[in-house]
Amino acid sequence: MAVVYGVNPVVEVLTAQPGTVERVYVAEGAKVHDLDRLYDLARRSGVRIERVPRERVARLAGGKVHQGVVAEVVEATYADPLDLLDVAAAAGTQPLLLALDQVQDPIHLGAALRSAHAMGGHGVVIPKDRAVGLTPAAVKASAGATAHLQVARATNLSRTLDDLKEKGVWVIGADMEGEPCDRVDLTGPICVVIGSEGKGLRPLTRQHCDRVVSIPMHGAGVGSLSASAAASILLYEVARQRRARG
Amino acid sequence: MAVVYGVNPVVEVLTAQPGTVERVYVAEGAKVHDLDRLYDLARRSGVRIERVPRERVARLAGGKVHQGVVAEVVEATYADPLDLLDVAAAAGTQPLLLALDQVQDPIHLGAALRSAHAMGGHGVVIPKDRAVGLTPAAVKASAGATAHLQVARATNLSRTLDDLKEKGVWVIGADMEGEPCDRVDLTGPICVVIGSEGKGLRPLTRQHCDRVVSIPMHGAGVGSLSASAAASILLYEVARQRRARG
Repeated sequence: MAVVYGVNPVVEVLTAQPGTVERVYVAEGAKVHDLDRLYDLARRSGVRIERVPRERVARLAGGKVHQGVVAEVVEATYADPLDLLDVAAAAGTQPLLLALDQVQDPIHLGAALRSAHAMGGHGVVIPKDRAVGLTPAAVKASAGATAHLQVARATNLSRTLDDLKEKGVWVIGADMEGEPCDRVDLTGPICVVIGSEGKGLRPLTRQHCDRVVSIPMHGAGVGSLSASAAASILLYEVARQRRARG
Repeated sequence: MAVVYGVNPVVEVLTAQPGTVERVYVAEGAKVHDLDRLYDLARRSGVRIERVPRERVARLAGGKVHQGVVAEVVEATYADPLDLLDVAAAAGTQPLLLALDQVQDPIHLGAALRSAHAMGGHGVVIPKDRAVGLTPAAVKASAGATAHLQVARATNLSRTLDDLKEKGVWVIGADMEGEPCDRVDLTGPICVVIGSEGKGLRPLTRQHCDRVVSIPMHGAGVGSLSASAAASILLYEVARQRRARG
């Protein structure tokens, strides 16, 4: 649990990420400016405001300038990328991981997490920087998947892919210019890597993949698949090949 | 182009579907209540407000009570379901259609349209009632696909499925309890039918399908796929089988 203190920061988190706010504390007797707005925002998000002694607010704020207001906020928790292999080991199946490089849109991240969970993926790796994290919007779009699926953050995605390769995982990148995915053996331990919306893999990420595969399209297939649609299809293809092999 | 007249209806369409509003006309000299709000909403949506003579507003409103305000609004256009077969014929390939039964969320509709377009689908059928249509949110989520892909509305989806069957199309429903999709021949003319989020096919819709297929999942696959993820995977499976057959 993290703490946000000060009127404006609390108003901001209630506005931008209301789903992360557990409770708001307002110091008794404090003259808080914008208090009406705070109550209004809290009520709309179903967040309780508690009036507590000023010392308690000061303690929660850890001695920082709190202006009489603090909020307790849930922090998203992330696994370590290599821990995801333990999930597969515990399940007694070949690892099936998904790495999302630079997905910016929380709706697309959530949709990819939902598909990864539905298709039996053991975990998802996202980069720590230049990518959206487990924001409330992503959690909501995952339709509950984040409660079950482990998500790991990689400080350096290329290094994480190398770490996975050292553990025997095949790193399979998705790109329009790869080999058709149904012509590549995907029955082993696998991490599927999907690039950002519409842009495909970054050159550096691509260099760290064992193979690069494409999704063959029917007829005059044009337009682009979303990252989550590409993830859904490739995880399906892995499942199909593993089933076919028995 | 449709016309919306009266202050409140124009305010409403500017609020709910700003992307559909081409222009707002305000009668010169008219005392319009809430005019500030109207200007504010229009500015925020990038919609131009034109001051025009009162007679022009009256003419645009077709003689209805306009309170000095009318808006020109783009209407979504839909094809006739059977017209979608002409698209396939013109492309010289086996028809590949998608029918979405009772999808309510515009983001999911848009995502499914995007995938259908990317996978080379010839068109998408949606029901006229109890389903979301081509709203601005759906158009936005389709990432441009709606500019290329024909969308048809069916007054009665079951009857439309029967009409398609009469034209030689195989109607393939998607449901957790169907046969694994990779064990069913999907190389002929096909319309894939996807039910509402998480609920699968309605019994009546299922009765009108030639076959019902499921998406096999890897290992402990749990959770549910979104309608758009299920559509992406099944359209991919069709493309894969057609390619494999050559």
